[in-house]
Amino acid sequence: MEQVSLATKTPSNVITCKAAVAWTANAPLSIEEVQVDPPKAGEVRIKIISAGICGTDNHILEGKNKVPLPAILGHEGAGIVESVGPGVTTLKPGDKVLTLPLPECRECVYCLHPKGNFCKKENILSPTGLMLDGTSRFTCRGKKIYHLYGTSTFTEYTVADEIALAKIDDAAPMDKVCVLGCEVPTGFGAVFNTAQVTPGSTCVVFGLGGIGSAIVMACKASGASRIIGVDINEQKFPRARALGVTDCLNPNKLKKPVQEVVMEMTGIGADFAFEAIGLIETMVAALKSCVMSYGVCVIMGVAPSGSQLSFDPAELLPGRTLKSSVMGGYKTRDGIPKLVTDYLQKKINTDVLITHKLPFEKVNEGFKLLREENCIRCVLTF
Amino acid sequence: MEQVSLATKTPSNVITCKAAVAWTANAPLSIEEVQVDPPKAGEVRIKIISAGICGTDNHILEGKNKVPLPAILGHEGAGIVESVGPGVTTLKPGDKVLTLPLPECRECVYCLHPKGNFCKKENILSPTGLMLDGTSRFTCRGKKIYHLYGTSTFTEYTVADEIALAKIDDAAPMDKVCVLGCEVPTGFGAVFNTAQVTPGSTCVVFGLGGIGSAIVMACKASGASRIIGVDINEQKFPRARALGVTDCLNPNKLKKPVQEVVMEMTGIGADFAFEAIGLIETMVAALKSCVMSYGVCVIMGVAPSGSQLSFDPAELLPGRTLKSSVMGGYKTRDGIPKLVTDYLQKKINTDVLITHKLPFEKVNEGFKLLREENCIRCVLTF
Repeated sequence: MEQVSLATKTPSNVITCKAAVAWTANAPLSIEEVQVDPPKAGEVRIKIISAGICGTDNHILEGKNKVPLPAILGHEGAGIVESVGPGVTTLKPGDKVLTLPLPECRECVYCLHPKGNFCKKENILSPTGLMLDGTSRFTCRGKKIYHLYGTSTFTEYTVADEIALAKIDDAAPMDKVCVLGCEVPTGFGAVFNTAQVTPGSTCVVFGLGGIGSAIVMACKASGASRIIGVDINEQKFPRARALGVTDCLNPNKLKKPVQEVVMEMTGIGADFAFEAIGLIETMVAALKSCVMSYGVCVIMGVAPSGSQLSFDPAELLPGRTLKSSVMGGYKTRDGIPKLVTDYLQKKINTDVLITHKLPFEKVNEGFKLLREENCIRCVLTF
Repeated sequence: MEQVSLATKTPSNVITCKAAVAWTANAPLSIEEVQVDPPKAGEVRIKIISAGICGTDNHILEGKNKVPLPAILGHEGAGIVESVGPGVTTLKPGDKVLTLPLPECRECVYCLHPKGNFCKKENILSPTGLMLDGTSRFTCRGKKIYHLYGTSTFTEYTVADEIALAKIDDAAPMDKVCVLGCEVPTGFGAVFNTAQVTPGSTCVVFGLGGIGSAIVMACKASGASRIIGVDINEQKFPRARALGVTDCLNPNKLKKPVQEVVMEMTGIGADFAFEAIGLIETMVAALKSCVMSYGVCVIMGVAPSGSQLSFDPAELLPGRTLKSSVMGGYKTRDGIPKLVTDYLQKKINTDVLITHKLPFEKVNEGFKLLREENCIRCVLTF
């Protein structure tokens, strides 16, 4: 029914709808009326059905990760195509899609490389806040509003480039699969693609929020025999244990640095360490928590802009590996629809990664849950 | 003949012989008469036949890498077993051996792990300058002299723990294979084991000395189609080209940082970058020279004690990998004799990595060659 009503809209319309605008950092989002321009060549306008609030959105709102403002935040979303611009061939009105903060152009040297996924058309490292053509589709109170990572999902309607959208199965429940747009691939891919966790191994996961919880699930699925979870919010511990964490550590309650405690608990350190917070301090602790000789440390958290990761290179020398990946190393348009299919076929149960749901208008309450409460992922519904 | 004469020596003797003693850093080595105690339990006394001068010896002599002094330096050597202490089962007088700065005890958790080679009994990260039992076997002018990394090869006789010696083929030419004790496995292993260089790839090698040259050879053997060599000593360029380097860069003659030049030359960066110098600046340049999305940077150089490797974690985020290994990731007692066999079967030709030979007494001249001249490896003969 949605499909029919959407397909009858005029694609050249400007849509006026509600969106949460971040006018500045360190202030609540403001629910505003915004104008959403029709899609230009290669672009697609989407009605957002659900959107997850990710830690990176929070880092941006707290001013740690710099992006152009004012902007409509949100990069994890599920929606239905409302209209398409000229030249769009892979999507049509009514299609269900997930938004992709990392696009897949399928043409650049990275997309064409078997191991590459960091598409040259990315808008993450030095975010412009604009579409690929260098302009914005959002206006509010007569002012240009920036996009976030080519996505912007905290709005009833958004515009994205075709290459930043994954077409998914029509049967996908939109309020469930939106987390497959960032949280799940980032965490799962860190484990399956980037670290390649082995059966019987010991893993340590710094941060038990959305990404960290997905990492825990994937470590367990990989056959890890011990999973040490680290967080300063002990409210997260019971849920983490339910997901597979065998030992919980609160660094604020330890008498020595957490990496030393991990060393003592394991004798030699963890085979695999994951940092899913985005703080330099926990990145260094993760590296030092790894076993020498063959330990692998994967950094998933995005550090504050301009940070310097600093450690004695002798920490690496004995054979440790330090790596990272964006969107878990998945080629996004190819890989993420497969994750949705896995979900529909009950091969993966990611519902447990959604702990809260709120109507879109309560987005600020969602951020509060993320910061203060026992929240893995809060999904906004529209 | 050597074997017979050596086997008749009395194992409980103290041997008085010549050695090059480093009394302090930043001074020439002093050729002295030293007393070498007989081997204790689990130890082996060796007559050194040849020894290579490695960049790490030079870093120590220049005071950058701290080890206990006064000491007999040198960690790359070929020798013949003179006598063995109680309990030694794998070596007997007359056996040919290479000294191993990284031992292989075959009992610890790292040695037993399929990917581990950083034996728990290593004496590299926090060098004690002593044998495993905590004492020294060297005396000079009545003073205790320290060992280096459980090896010490700039001496006519040395004592090493059984686990720090690789028994090699009787047919091995000792003045040729000594470089298989450090230079060759470190460089080859960085490429074959740690980075796993792929055919058709682009590699960049920072430092065209001993390790760097071995890396170049291994990159070429792995089918790399482009090998960019970086050094501030242009005297090394002709030999590097002969080994396989396709492009030579002297950072001191570039108008922009070397990593930017590598980016321009390659369009996207190198698939694999190797740092074989041991300077923080070149480690960071190597990381930034790698292609995003799937580039691998391997640090082989040993940085000055107390250094901090520092970079924006956003350099790692797009899928780069930073790693290191000691002795190229080889399990030393298992792997190095196989390299010697490969050499004898002409599968590898490492003679080209030896550019200079000097009698042992001219060791200071050897260090001068390493610092100033067109020297890959200078081998001392005894």
